Amino acid sequence: MSAAPLRLGLAGLGTVGIGVVKIVQREAALIAARSGRPVTITAVSARDRTKNRDADLSGYAWETDPVALATRPDVDVFVEVMGGHEGPARAATEAAIAAGKDVVTANKALLAHHGQALALAAEAAGRTIRFEAAVAGGIPVIKALTEGLAGNRIRRVMGVMNGTCNYILTRMQAAGLPYETVFEEARQLGYLEADPNLDVGGIDAGHKLSLLAAIAFGTRVSFDAVELEGIGNVSIDDIRLADEMGYRIKLLGVAQLTGRGLEQRMTPCLVPAASPLGQLQGGTNMVVLEGDSVGQIVLRGPGAGEGPTASAVMADVIDLARGFRVPTFGLPAADLAAPVPARAATPAPYYLRMTLLDKPGALAKIATCLGDSGISIDQMRQINQPGDADNDAIVLIVTHKASPADIGHALTQFDRTGVLVDRPIAIRIEEV
Amino acid sequence: MSAAPLRLGLAGLGTVGIGVVKIVQREAALIAARSGRPVTITAVSARDRTKNRDADLSGYAWETDPVALATRPDVDVFVEVMGGHEGPARAATEAAIAAGKDVVTANKALLAHHGQALALAAEAAGRTIRFEAAVAGGIPVIKALTEGLAGNRIRRVMGVMNGTCNYILTRMQAAGLPYETVFEEARQLGYLEADPNLDVGGIDAGHKLSLLAAIAFGTRVSFDAVELEGIGNVSIDDIRLADEMGYRIKLLGVAQLTGRGLEQRMTPCLVPAASPLGQLQGGTNMVVLEGDSVGQIVLRGPGAGEGPTASAVMADVIDLARGFRVPTFGLPAADLAAPVPARAATPAPYYLRMTLLDKPGALAKIATCLGDSGISIDQMRQINQPGDADNDAIVLIVTHKASPADIGHALTQFDRTGVLVDRPIAIRIEEV
Repeated sequence: MSAAPLRLGLAGLGTVGIGVVKIVQREAALIAARSGRPVTITAVSARDRTKNRDADLSGYAWETDPVALATRPDVDVFVEVMGGHEGPARAATEAAIAAGKDVVTANKALLAHHGQALALAAEAAGRTIRFEAAVAGGIPVIKALTEGLAGNRIRRVMGVMNGTCNYILTRMQAAGLPYETVFEEARQLGYLEADPNLDVGGIDAGHKLSLLAAIAFGTRVSFDAVELEGIGNVSIDDIRLADEMGYRIKLLGVAQLTGRGLEQRMTPCLVPAASPLGQLQGGTNMVVLEGDSVGQIVLRGPGAGEGPTASAVMADVIDLARGFRVPTFGLPAADLAAPVPARAATPAPYYLRMTLLDKPGALAKIATCLGDSGISIDQMRQINQPGDADNDAIVLIVTHKASPADIGHALTQFDRTGVLVDRPIAIRIEEV
Repeated sequence: MSAAPLRLGLAGLGTVGIGVVKIVQREAALIAARSGRPVTITAVSARDRTKNRDADLSGYAWETDPVALATRPDVDVFVEVMGGHEGPARAATEAAIAAGKDVVTANKALLAHHGQALALAAEAAGRTIRFEAAVAGGIPVIKALTEGLAGNRIRRVMGVMNGTCNYILTRMQAAGLPYETVFEEARQLGYLEADPNLDVGGIDAGHKLSLLAAIAFGTRVSFDAVELEGIGNVSIDDIRLADEMGYRIKLLGVAQLTGRGLEQRMTPCLVPAASPLGQLQGGTNMVVLEGDSVGQIVLRGPGAGEGPTASAVMADVIDLARGFRVPTFGLPAADLAAPVPARAATPAPYYLRMTLLDKPGALAKIATCLGDSGISIDQMRQINQPGDADNDAIVLIVTHKASPADIGHALTQFDRTGVLVDRPIAIRIEEV
């Protein structure tokens, strides 16, 4: 192999960083054969040099400061697997670009917040930022969208992209346990971020959706415009009742470009139990890509972990070793359009659950509110709760397609009827 | 857009060719933006110029001879969507390479038979052959395997890659109809190739598997070593009985590298009904890729049709416009190893169905044969057929894991017991 090696500077020696080291060491010959040149690590960086790590780092220079690592003349590609959207990760990425390095990153938060500025800087320097590992772990979804479906006008992107949330929701369903109990289990299993709201608040998954949307629709990343709702209010009652009607509750991201603008939402949704999304168990991720020519492509795989995330990092590294340089978001950053954020307005069926006072005509009042809001009913069920002394009735309604605004209007009208025992639940049923 | 256009010569104006024309015309601006240069069609070729086609071809030069098209000086990329593994497709592809063109092809048969020679020729000329459209239609599986999982040692590749076979099998199950009836339906719907054995004999799917195996394991394409068994002998009885035990029958391709060599088989298998492969309905394709780092990635999408196949062709074209040139099979063709073909020997559970004479001790004899062959039984069921005057008994057995050789031995032993009414059925249960 006579070609010059591609030299990596690796910032971050957590699970993913060590995974990258292991692949580079174990598969040096295979990677060189596939890339047409060797891939080597020049230097590494992490907060604590003394920590015992599951890999031999003796052959690499050590930099305490990731900015120093990123700007070393013997580094061609800065690999950032530290995390954090400000501080050292941001500073080192900016420094790497300024020093003319390509960047491979697993950092969805950094790109969700600063992706446009970083991409502009990289392209001005004739470099690129690759981030396969930032979205859906080991699934090569950035590549599928940016390259594999490049001949398509993308219609819609959907995904379950936070394994912890999907673990919690599927565990609640399988074990019949309430959210708080399973949340605590997940914490003890080490599945949650230090700030759990990044997971269960939908923020992490929202970051990922905003990156996919930028590529899919040729618009600047706009994480701030993602409608976010976490899973903290998903009740075991709704999981069970949805199940009885043939649905599963998922934290589902949906991005689509409509006549009014770009809709991006990461919210709990119902999906048919028999659909690929409905079947998704545990920490597995799934992304659905819909293009005008190709139709629907579904990608499924591990969303996190040492091996899968390192696999995605290495795909980007090998692309760079092969000389492939696609613009960060598929189009030159300067050509990305300013997105026109739109509140979700695409009509969909809705699942409604409410408890009504035991009063004559209560249900009729609710049905009237729906009719007055222009919403028609697909299914309605009244559930009697044995042992409920009040005889309050739980009512489940699945509507025909209605706009979010009409549903909001109906919920306001419900309030005025005086027949509700508590706040009604409304969950969108996404057509997948 | 100042960069020089990438100029295509398009051979074949059937469904896929016209799909390519439509995308190139409709999405010219989008493709130019994504590629960094325009993509244009210079010339086209098809057998019959007078045929009425659903696209405006007036701007393109017409070549009656695809070899003349392939060698035009104003063509950069030869796009071959004619089909056929000899004759004009082969001659034109060879001529294109000799003339220094890159090739984009949807022709699985051509590459399954001549892929190694063509790849060597292309690489000697500094060119490449891309064939995303040849495998699993619109699913970007070649890209996922060659690039997205390039940091992995691939363990196993599986797939349902012939939509017609999957349509026939799922329709048999859903409607309870025998093979012959559904085959005839499929013929009338135009789902079958002119030579139906390409579909139902597993040949087309076997071609695709051999191409995936070459990339996955770095070995020369060896279609001749694929163990092929079509779906013509799959009975509605087995579909129904497998269903009752929680399985589906699929024409499943499996390629894996073992200590003994490369196993490639395209055969009817049982898979769990609840697995992604088991859930696959109709003409949809699915490919499962397993890598040492990434674990299992599942890709699902349309396996054929104008839009999906043209989408895959365009992905290859846009890659070339962007200047990406990966070797045809991921590694330089000269470095691909000669595969050591191995008969399938990986143990698996088996489904056995047989009809036994109404004789005392018949079932015990069968159980003894299994024990003597080193095979243990996971489930056994005897089914009484109401109205069967003979009182012959249908026996279903699911074995624990056994090697194909042991199963073969047991079947030979069964024959010698004298208790079989007819030839027993044995179908592998693939663990997915």
